[in-house]
Amino acid sequence: MAKDKIRRPRAETPKGFRDYFGAEVTARAAMLRRIADVYHAYGFDALETSGVETVEALGKFLPDVDRPNEGVFAWQEDVEGSKPGDWLALRYDLTAPLARVYAQHRNDLPTPYRRYAMGPVWRNEKPGPGRFRQFYQCDADTVGAPSVAADAEICAMLADTLEAVGIARGDYIVRVNNRKVLNGVMEVAGVLDPFDPEKFAAERGIVLRAIDKLDRLGTDGVRMLLGEGRKDESGDFTKGAGLGPEQAKVVMGFMEARRDTAEATLARLRELVGPSAMGSEGVDELETIAGLLDSQGMGPDRVVIDPSVVRGLGYYTGPVFEAELTFEILDEKGRARQFGSVAGGGRYDDLVKRFTGQAVPATGVSIGVDRLLAALAAKGRGEAEAQGPVVVTVMDRDRMADYQAMASELRAAGIRAEVYLGNPKNFGNQMKYADRRGSPVAVIEGADEKDRGVVQIKDLILGAQIAKDATLEEWKDRPSQIEVPRHELVERVRAMLESQSS
Amino acid sequence: MAKDKIRRPRAETPKGFRDYFGAEVTARAAMLRRIADVYHAYGFDALETSGVETVEALGKFLPDVDRPNEGVFAWQEDVEGSKPGDWLALRYDLTAPLARVYAQHRNDLPTPYRRYAMGPVWRNEKPGPGRFRQFYQCDADTVGAPSVAADAEICAMLADTLEAVGIARGDYIVRVNNRKVLNGVMEVAGVLDPFDPEKFAAERGIVLRAIDKLDRLGTDGVRMLLGEGRKDESGDFTKGAGLGPEQAKVVMGFMEARRDTAEATLARLRELVGPSAMGSEGVDELETIAGLLDSQGMGPDRVVIDPSVVRGLGYYTGPVFEAELTFEILDEKGRARQFGSVAGGGRYDDLVKRFTGQAVPATGVSIGVDRLLAALAAKGRGEAEAQGPVVVTVMDRDRMADYQAMASELRAAGIRAEVYLGNPKNFGNQMKYADRRGSPVAVIEGADEKDRGVVQIKDLILGAQIAKDATLEEWKDRPSQIEVPRHELVERVRAMLESQSS
Repeated sequence: MAKDKIRRPRAETPKGFRDYFGAEVTARAAMLRRIADVYHAYGFDALETSGVETVEALGKFLPDVDRPNEGVFAWQEDVEGSKPGDWLALRYDLTAPLARVYAQHRNDLPTPYRRYAMGPVWRNEKPGPGRFRQFYQCDADTVGAPSVAADAEICAMLADTLEAVGIARGDYIVRVNNRKVLNGVMEVAGVLDPFDPEKFAAERGIVLRAIDKLDRLGTDGVRMLLGEGRKDESGDFTKGAGLGPEQAKVVMGFMEARRDTAEATLARLRELVGPSAMGSEGVDELETIAGLLDSQGMGPDRVVIDPSVVRGLGYYTGPVFEAELTFEILDEKGRARQFGSVAGGGRYDDLVKRFTGQAVPATGVSIGVDRLLAALAAKGRGEAEAQGPVVVTVMDRDRMADYQAMASELRAAGIRAEVYLGNPKNFGNQMKYADRRGSPVAVIEGADEKDRGVVQIKDLILGAQIAKDATLEEWKDRPSQIEVPRHELVERVRAMLESQSS
Repeated sequence: MAKDKIRRPRAETPKGFRDYFGAEVTARAAMLRRIADVYHAYGFDALETSGVETVEALGKFLPDVDRPNEGVFAWQEDVEGSKPGDWLALRYDLTAPLARVYAQHRNDLPTPYRRYAMGPVWRNEKPGPGRFRQFYQCDADTVGAPSVAADAEICAMLADTLEAVGIARGDYIVRVNNRKVLNGVMEVAGVLDPFDPEKFAAERGIVLRAIDKLDRLGTDGVRMLLGEGRKDESGDFTKGAGLGPEQAKVVMGFMEARRDTAEATLARLRELVGPSAMGSEGVDELETIAGLLDSQGMGPDRVVIDPSVVRGLGYYTGPVFEAELTFEILDEKGRARQFGSVAGGGRYDDLVKRFTGQAVPATGVSIGVDRLLAALAAKGRGEAEAQGPVVVTVMDRDRMADYQAMASELRAAGIRAEVYLGNPKNFGNQMKYADRRGSPVAVIEGADEKDRGVVQIKDLILGAQIAKDATLEEWKDRPSQIEVPRHELVERVRAMLESQSS
């Protein structure tokens, strides 16, 4: 074989993908577990679909339609005989698979069907800094419940979930709005005709996305997008909705309708939607939601009515909600900024209809798990780094059996432990390894110790401290390495570990 | 829009994929957690790679090369400018990504690197009954440890893991062998020339796969595959390795070399490998492994040396191991058969070399989580079905707030609870819903109860029993529905739940 002619493969993740190590993995797993516990307590059942769906079942409901590289990872199945293969794709969210599952299994599922799902989703987007093409979502949805009580429940559950994963009350807010109110406002502004719902659909799409960018563009930017359009810093021009000044004023009024109390906000919204039947229905629904939340002790410190929330997705038909973290973090340039949104959702009554022809009411929320983990890390409330194992060093390679027996005894006592399995020749390398592993304790048994029936146990945490800043007295007073009888190994290691955590 | 012209999408999973509901999801999650706990105790760190890799990084190491439809799901990235896009694919196992990760991050990882990984993998195979194109794997590997102490550790960990997930000692056995011994035997049989390792490679591949099929084909079937070949029941002919009767006899002797004790088996293997240096090295390694396991209290009731284990994968270079469940289950035709293999692995020293040019010793195990779950279910030791929620029924749709408050109080006390969110008009439907959810208790508060400050709580478990087989006396003695003061709701529901589980 002409081996040197073979080009070696590159050892690289594909662009936009990444690896997660150690505590990154276990912290996420722990968070998903806590979220699942809350969802479960609310009566939601787990569902896990596969990562692969047919392209036709997924449909085209991707958010952010104004970005050109948006898409899915798709491929065609192998041909069988004369039949062309199906097109398959990786799921881009957990909602499209839910609609497929409900349509497929509706006769076997309870109605309403409350389900939660957690797992990776894939987006065939242009990767960017901190923007990955695979990420986790964690969703809860109720299918088959027309009442806004289902929406209120999801909002309450979202607030409870954030607290369960470690976001303190006061550090988050769940904001609720209703697309029907926005539609009422659009009616008043003359960009929605209730007798011809398709008319002005493109304009309304632009209005929706403009409002969704309020945080980023400010009111002036949004006003430009409602009118002729807006040129961004790079010089790119985004076409606006073409609304006149009076029309834009009505829409801007909606965005800024939030008042100090729910009552006052609802009253202001009633003024704005005026004679629109759909608008009034939307305000009624918000009022019902506010009442239901109140009865569960969900005050305005946890959930508020906020008309500036619209959510970018086209498929929402009623209440929409968003959870925002309200504390400030420092961005990459050291500037304080609000952390922002970590979850969102709303009512979407038409997704199942694609399959069955029958409208099925549905509402749900999706939590951005990776963003929430980043938020907790920024607050210093992330999971503690997993403790490294006790490392049993190898002084004599012919006595591996003795060392394995020690590790085995430690593990049987519930202590994470391992034998050093690299080349044992250089003891310094073994200590470097223990350091890299974050080991709290090293166990050492050379020929001399073996003869005398003892082992050395070395406190690596204390050792590191002493190396850094202890005086000679302190060092003598509390040596970082002690000799103990072999048969006391487990209890003495345990005592050392306890002294470290106290 | 001409809506009726639009063909509705089919609500179907793609062929060979499936959905998992409720307890199927939570039971797997619980098992993965238990496995991760054992791996962690042994000093292994979590790693999570993405589902997508470049085709060149994955390489072609798929098992079962004699099946024609074997393959990966792959697609080409969009072209950027004049550069053709990379080919990407879904990972088909967790070992190939580990090799890529170790090559990519080797300067930042400890050596040896012990890691575990769990998650779905995808195979583009022809789906069949019980054979899915996405399934879970759960792997642990040690990279950078040349010593067979690493292999022994994996075997011990595998035995501990099986017990941790609920397989009793005696219901499983971990069997260990060594490819070097097999190579020694091949040398003796004249199908391996140590000075020209590529010669007879195809024949040795056939021998390997033939031995791997011993369970399925029996000794006669294997002997045919070692010789000219074998026609199966369907009439298909599989070409054999072309060994003469004397050569085949040597190989068959190897497969049947297991004796009552490790010592006797090792002695028999020494006879068989005779003058082969590689064969002797292999027997020495097995002897070391046996000694290390013994020192950890891993007796032959848990791990045995068994020369009939070879594992189908071409890339193993040293020790190989397999965990088998030894109890019988009834197959789909009602016949008793052994459950068989649930995990396997071995030493593969060349996977990282593909990337770096440097051989890196590695060894690991992969647990077939879905098979293991099926085994536990067959033994009746699966997770108990998750308990359904307490259902608060809706007698008056204007009082949703009251019902939500009840559910909220129950949840605050740690009791899974929900309000019925379907159309409340027909009370019978609410009871049917509670039944489908497996609810233990229903709460009922109509206008009359509201006025009197009481609620009805209905024991649905007892109710179902009574409906089935209670006498009138029993029914009077322990009514399945009781009236309790509203303010005692939580404690009385709790008492009812406790009476059910006692």
